[in-house]
Amino acid sequence: MSVRETPQIDSAAGKLGVLLPGLGAVSTTFIAGVEMIRKGLTPPIGSLSQMSRIRLGKRTENRNPLIREFVPLAGLDQLVFGGWDIYEDNCYEAALKAGVLSPEHRETVRPLLESIAPMKAVFEQRYVQRINGPNVKQGKNKRELAEALIQDIADFKAANGCDRCVMVWCGSTEIFQKAGDVHSSLEKFEAGLEASDPDIAPSQIYAYAALKSGVPFANGAPNLTVDTPALQELAKLNKLPIAGKDYKSGQTFMKTLLAPGLKARMLGLSGWFSGNILGNRDGEVLDEPANFKTKEDSKLSALDVIFQPKFYPELYKDYFHKVRIEYYPPRGDNKEGWDNIDIFGWMGYPMQIKVNFLCRDSILAAPLVLDLALFMDLANRAGMSGIQEWLSFYFKSPMAAKEIYPEHDIFIQLMKMKNTLRWMKGEEMITHLGLEYYD
Amino acid sequence: MSVRETPQIDSAAGKLGVLLPGLGAVSTTFIAGVEMIRKGLTPPIGSLSQMSRIRLGKRTENRNPLIREFVPLAGLDQLVFGGWDIYEDNCYEAALKAGVLSPEHRETVRPLLESIAPMKAVFEQRYVQRINGPNVKQGKNKRELAEALIQDIADFKAANGCDRCVMVWCGSTEIFQKAGDVHSSLEKFEAGLEASDPDIAPSQIYAYAALKSGVPFANGAPNLTVDTPALQELAKLNKLPIAGKDYKSGQTFMKTLLAPGLKARMLGLSGWFSGNILGNRDGEVLDEPANFKTKEDSKLSALDVIFQPKFYPELYKDYFHKVRIEYYPPRGDNKEGWDNIDIFGWMGYPMQIKVNFLCRDSILAAPLVLDLALFMDLANRAGMSGIQEWLSFYFKSPMAAKEIYPEHDIFIQLMKMKNTLRWMKGEEMITHLGLEYYD
Amino acid sequence: MSVRETPQIDSAAGKLGVLLPGLGAVSTTFIAGVEMIRKGLTPPIGSLSQMSRIRLGKRTENRNPLIREFVPLAGLDQLVFGGWDIYEDNCYEAALKAGVLSPEHRETVRPLLESIAPMKAVFEQRYVQRINGPNVKQGKNKRELAEALIQDIADFKAANGCDRCVMVWCGSTEIFQKAGDVHSSLEKFEAGLEASDPDIAPSQIYAYAALKSGVPFANGAPNLTVDTPALQELAKLNKLPIAGKDYKSGQTFMKTLLAPGLKARMLGLSGWFSGNILGNRDGEVLDEPANFKTKEDSKLSALDVIFQPKFYPELYKDYFHKVRIEYYPPRGDNKEGWDNIDIFGWMGYPMQIKVNFLCRDSILAAPLVLDLALFMDLANRAGMSGIQEWLSFYFKSPMAAKEIYPEHDIFIQLMKMKNTLRWMKGEEMITHLGLEYYD
Amino acid sequence: MSVRETPQIDSAAGKLGVLLPGLGAVSTTFIAGVEMIRKGLTPPIGSLSQMSRIRLGKRTENRNPLIREFVPLAGLDQLVFGGWDIYEDNCYEAALKAGVLSPEHRETVRPLLESIAPMKAVFEQRYVQRINGPNVKQGKNKRELAEALIQDIADFKAANGCDRCVMVWCGSTEIFQKAGDVHSSLEKFEAGLEASDPDIAPSQIYAYAALKSGVPFANGAPNLTVDTPALQELAKLNKLPIAGKDYKSGQTFMKTLLAPGLKARMLGLSGWFSGNILGNRDGEVLDEPANFKTKEDSKLSALDVIFQPKFYPELYKDYFHKVRIEYYPPRGDNKEGWDNIDIFGWMGYPMQIKVNFLCRDSILAAPLVLDLALFMDLANRAGMSGIQEWLSFYFKSPMAAKEIYPEHDIFIQLMKMKNTLRWMKGEEMITHLGLEYYD
Repeated sequence: MSVRETPQIDSAAGKLGVLLPGLGAVSTTFIAGVEMIRKGLTPPIGSLSQMSRIRLGKRTENRNPLIREFVPLAGLDQLVFGGWDIYEDNCYEAALKAGVLSPEHRETVRPLLESIAPMKAVFEQRYVQRINGPNVKQGKNKRELAEALIQDIADFKAANGCDRCVMVWCGSTEIFQKAGDVHSSLEKFEAGLEASDPDIAPSQIYAYAALKSGVPFANGAPNLTVDTPALQELAKLNKLPIAGKDYKSGQTFMKTLLAPGLKARMLGLSGWFSGNILGNRDGEVLDEPANFKTKEDSKLSALDVIFQPKFYPELYKDYFHKVRIEYYPPRGDNKEGWDNIDIFGWMGYPMQIKVNFLCRDSILAAPLVLDLALFMDLANRAGMSGIQEWLSFYFKSPMAAKEIYPEHDIFIQLMKMKNTLRWMKGEEMITHLGLEYYD
Repeated sequence: MSVRETPQIDSAAGKLGVLLPGLGAVSTTFIAGVEMIRKGLTPPIGSLSQMSRIRLGKRTENRNPLIREFVPLAGLDQLVFGGWDIYEDNCYEAALKAGVLSPEHRETVRPLLESIAPMKAVFEQRYVQRINGPNVKQGKNKRELAEALIQDIADFKAANGCDRCVMVWCGSTEIFQKAGDVHSSLEKFEAGLEASDPDIAPSQIYAYAALKSGVPFANGAPNLTVDTPALQELAKLNKLPIAGKDYKSGQTFMKTLLAPGLKARMLGLSGWFSGNILGNRDGEVLDEPANFKTKEDSKLSALDVIFQPKFYPELYKDYFHKVRIEYYPPRGDNKEGWDNIDIFGWMGYPMQIKVNFLCRDSILAAPLVLDLALFMDLANRAGMSGIQEWLSFYFKSPMAAKEIYPEHDIFIQLMKMKNTLRWMKGEEMITHLGLEYYD
Repeated sequence: MSVRETPQIDSAAGKLGVLLPGLGAVSTTFIAGVEMIRKGLTPPIGSLSQMSRIRLGKRTENRNPLIREFVPLAGLDQLVFGGWDIYEDNCYEAALKAGVLSPEHRETVRPLLESIAPMKAVFEQRYVQRINGPNVKQGKNKRELAEALIQDIADFKAANGCDRCVMVWCGSTEIFQKAGDVHSSLEKFEAGLEASDPDIAPSQIYAYAALKSGVPFANGAPNLTVDTPALQELAKLNKLPIAGKDYKSGQTFMKTLLAPGLKARMLGLSGWFSGNILGNRDGEVLDEPANFKTKEDSKLSALDVIFQPKFYPELYKDYFHKVRIEYYPPRGDNKEGWDNIDIFGWMGYPMQIKVNFLCRDSILAAPLVLDLALFMDLANRAGMSGIQEWLSFYFKSPMAAKEIYPEHDIFIQLMKMKNTLRWMKGEEMITHLGLEYYD
Repeated sequence: MSVRETPQIDSAAGKLGVLLPGLGAVSTTFIAGVEMIRKGLTPPIGSLSQMSRIRLGKRTENRNPLIREFVPLAGLDQLVFGGWDIYEDNCYEAALKAGVLSPEHRETVRPLLESIAPMKAVFEQRYVQRINGPNVKQGKNKRELAEALIQDIADFKAANGCDRCVMVWCGSTEIFQKAGDVHSSLEKFEAGLEASDPDIAPSQIYAYAALKSGVPFANGAPNLTVDTPALQELAKLNKLPIAGKDYKSGQTFMKTLLAPGLKARMLGLSGWFSGNILGNRDGEVLDEPANFKTKEDSKLSALDVIFQPKFYPELYKDYFHKVRIEYYPPRGDNKEGWDNIDIFGWMGYPMQIKVNFLCRDSILAAPLVLDLALFMDLANRAGMSGIQEWLSFYFKSPMAAKEIYPEHDIFIQLMKMKNTLRWMKGEEMITHLGLEYYD
């Protein structure tokens, strides 16, 4: 199948630092959950890396190891956590404000949460307009801010005895931005840091600092960040994996289940309306049109790739697609999606599907942070650098090589991930052909 | 991948008779739609065989032929239709009563529909308790009924100049039944026909007649039919493909999109309630508990296979699953599904998904009839006999080889189907590994 | 308006015993809530008697006293609680099993809940088939059982220093029953008690004991109970108020909001499907068809009375109405209703309404218990005996005088209740005419 | 009850002209439906004036006449239709574009629809920004435009032999506007017409022209129009009834059913989110924020009045209320509302209600146009001038006398309307006390 050879994978031994820009609802829920799992108080629900099995060989061979036993992942006991935030709250206080955890859960992991105080953040008001906080770095230009982050990473590694780190973005959505001249090469980017170019967003400074420090970077927001030539050049140069962007956790997750199904059956689409109500800090940030635009762009992209209107003009050329997010404080972190899908079938007859998803934003996102931290570290140890397309499974807007379209269909993404894992270990690809059972 | 060689496929030339036991809502909608397509009045929406493309080679090769141009399928102009029903209505009258088609569509294809009158049906009240009709065969025993059907098939072929036929069951759901002694071998089955064994259901007599006549048989209802050793023995003997069972068209279609998605993300399931309201003849038949039991069994089976509770006890061992179908005449053929899904994520926090599917029963089923007719004929010409697992995509309760579990995940089913088509034509399997784009 | 004079109302001073047959989810939630209110920890949400105001005179007069300050109700501090149950659990243990209350709430009121142990119940398996318990009275016939209850009431009053009592049924739904010969007069009923007539249900023995003890009786279940000539005769004889039946708390509450609205606008109805999923003991009892029949009958009746098909045959003659309750354990006490309503408007065009009510059974019912206890006591002190039609507001199947139809429209019920309260205090009726503002 | 005497009502004989500013979806659906009713092809579904009965006296008297037989309304055969629009399409062409009517219905009433061509409209782009059309009056100032409308009315009456006219606004929503100085008196308003004051909106010019011509005016949009001192002064001066504003047809209709129900039960409200998707011209106009603001204001107002947060701060002080309308072309005139209601009950436990209303905008609005036309004419003949509060039933933002709050509760509105009709005919008010049945 592939011409590439099975890779050599370095040992997972030692401590793995998980560095989180943004210590809000998602990060604190992630840390609290890992701690609960380490105490044996909950299984790692929602984490494919921890709970999922992978089928090897034929269905009759009954070989289905856990993924975490099949590939050499860092164990949860090896993880240590750190991060940055514009508020001074430690993780316990931040969790209290986020209101995601039950009092019982929150108190159980209080010592660990209280021990994690945020490092001063790199922040620029114009990129996230609805919030502001006091815990912010000062510097004469953006280069100095980057260097301060690099120093933070080095200090963190030393203080915690880490062998390796990964960085997973858990901060806010920044305003919409297209790659500009300053993002076109590493050289221009570094000149831009010096000149405090306004087109360099805070998230890009974090990613730059990570990659300069030998730390893989995964992007959980729809921000541009590593989706630029400059930072991809740096990743290649330092042989580091990067991945993104925007956790696929709630409504888009559902959409990338349903859309491939409708497509599989060649059912036409006349319209898809996706409404959301959401009451947490994320909802507040996205109430600002410039920030919502970034999220909207990310949420809109999946359908076109899945439906391939150019191949199927009679079915998908003219569908109307609208995504809305409404700030609705009564729900707090409990997000609710309402989708209305107008389809048409045989002879053009119309039908409708409505999906009402009463979900929890951070509960869905937290295990993705865990998986990304562990798989990015694995990729790094396996010598896989640049864009990790096999982690598309986790993202609303998966990054892909320039010449190809990204894969949005969650089932193709899963297949891609599992066959990548099989390939890493020299196992045969699964194709589901299965004629052998009928010979 | 497979040790089997690329098969030789006979030409698709000549007329293909499509024989339909049951000329009700589904059959008449199917026939009307094919006629509309032949007249160029509608694209074949919902039909994978007609509209879908298949990717060949790498994403960068841009080879995506239509399936119907990739494998040698019979063309729609080659199809002729016939069938049996317990009512004497011709297809136009039956369509009028079914109320699926708009007056405009119905009148457009009136000449063809009026030309198709039902042959006398084999029927036994105890298998379908809520309906009865006058257009029924008499015979001294079930063997005579089978012979009458065999004669019908021969007469139909002769009268219509057919080169080949396929039979696709579009009749009612029979009462729940497990394979008994009479189904354990072809010999016992034939003795049972002679003795009019009460365990031989009408659908089995149709399937027997088809297979004796060299006609592939696909089973669109959850009835036992060809899911028995006796009839599988006959299929093997006569080298004929069989497939089943129960069209996966509405709610179960949606469930087999959602369940693999939840499973992919390792989200736990505490309960799944599936309600339906339905006002057509199908709803009326299923209002009888003995018939509903057959449908219920078929609808319940998918989740267990997808969720694999034995591998994932913490997530899927104890979920509560209930399926209800409520006869609700105001809707006619417009079926409505309402699913409530109780899931739990990270740290055990509960979430809910509700899906409300306002669908149309026959509109969803009709293109499946078309695809099954064409693919069964293709399999037959390719020398593929016995259970066609690659057509699992179309069924709620896919039949599979004895030693393996059936695949219910619609995306695995699609992969299986497409890789089977690739195999038929000697193309490389798709695994979605895709490392080559990053070298 | 009325020829009747403003009544004399006796003082509400002294202790009021609230006697509850059935100490399960509803009763324990009711008691816990009253205790929380008495401690000032929650307002009495859901209780019209405690929170609602009543407008008096013109809109410009601004007279809107609280109902509990307008009419002389017993105060919450005057209430003492007692009851019967077939299980031996005290109210704390019962609340724990019911799973309605949060741990925090439950522990706050633990002392009071633990102090209330159930008296031995009168129970007969055939009336409630899915449950059974050990805490049951024995007696040689039903008369002895009645006398034991009368003794219980006397003992309870003495032990708790009660001035007055009211009884509010909070037990299970019994199997469906129509009034028979034994219910046709008090004399026959008493003979039936002696003979242990199988047609005398346990709830009827409770009601008999209450009325014999001078205690008003309100019926929170759809059981026949006081909806019989025999017990109405006893109520009249002893000048006691009675009311019923079946708390209107969840789905039927919603239906009696929506139906009057559709009717007000003369929108036609072709079908109304009401599904429920419910996981508590109530759901378990109603999984038995004979018990469900009683509930179904109660739930079905409202629409016909509201829509008046005989006056509006073009709109309401032929609508299809179906009510289902599905036992679904994952939800526990959290009930969920899903209604689909098919309506038609101008020129007959169809439209649909779906209502998904994620409610909590006992949370909705508990404040109704409180209001009924207080208003029944008020009625008793005001000398209002027999059926209290003005309390129809609280019931799915309101009892009414023989010659008239019951009122199901919740807004007419509310008007009736408020004008009754105004009448009790000699205030002018409100008619909403309001021409005076425009003179 | 009222000190006012039963009014003298003039005869309804002669032709009644119904003048409609705006000949789009609502108007053409209204006219088509009236014509279908006149031909006996459909009952007048949705029209209270035509179909509803009114109870008189006691429930046992069985006096329930049809409203149209109880009060002297104009008959449908007496109606003639005219109107203005910015497009030149006659009503048949406009109905074709609106896409509300089935081809069958549309063709049945084609002659009447084709005979009604729009008079040239008064239009000002800045008030309705998303649409524009060629069929527009020119004039040197707004006074001339008003005079042209007055001339249109006179010409229409003469040409059609009308004895009386009513004007019912069926045009677009104008941008949000508060009453300014030019609206503060009739004198200033007339000076403003002369000066073409930019604060005088087109709808106000229509209303002015109507009232100058002796024609009652009802306002079906949320526009300011007659909700100003200037035009109310003119109505009083000419003794003409006025009413408004904004047809209560879809989502707000549902909200004013549900909100009074929640309030009646003293259930608390933490949030209410109302989303809409809508694909017709109305949706297009409201896609402009300035126009949406007018509609939003109208849609938001009902809840506060119904819930009375100042009386019930513990239940209703802090609820979050958001209304959104999303332009979604795939649905055309078929509007869909999705409401999420977060409530809390006993002890503060939260519950949720979701309402999904698949409605049809014009089908719901059309019968309101009919009722308003007939009742405004009735009021006029009964000498009832100024604001007709008894017609609040039909409006989202009912106009009311200055010193009182408007009534939004649809059941109080219905009571008010029916008791007003009873009063007009000297019948006793209904209070629902009903003690007489129990004496």
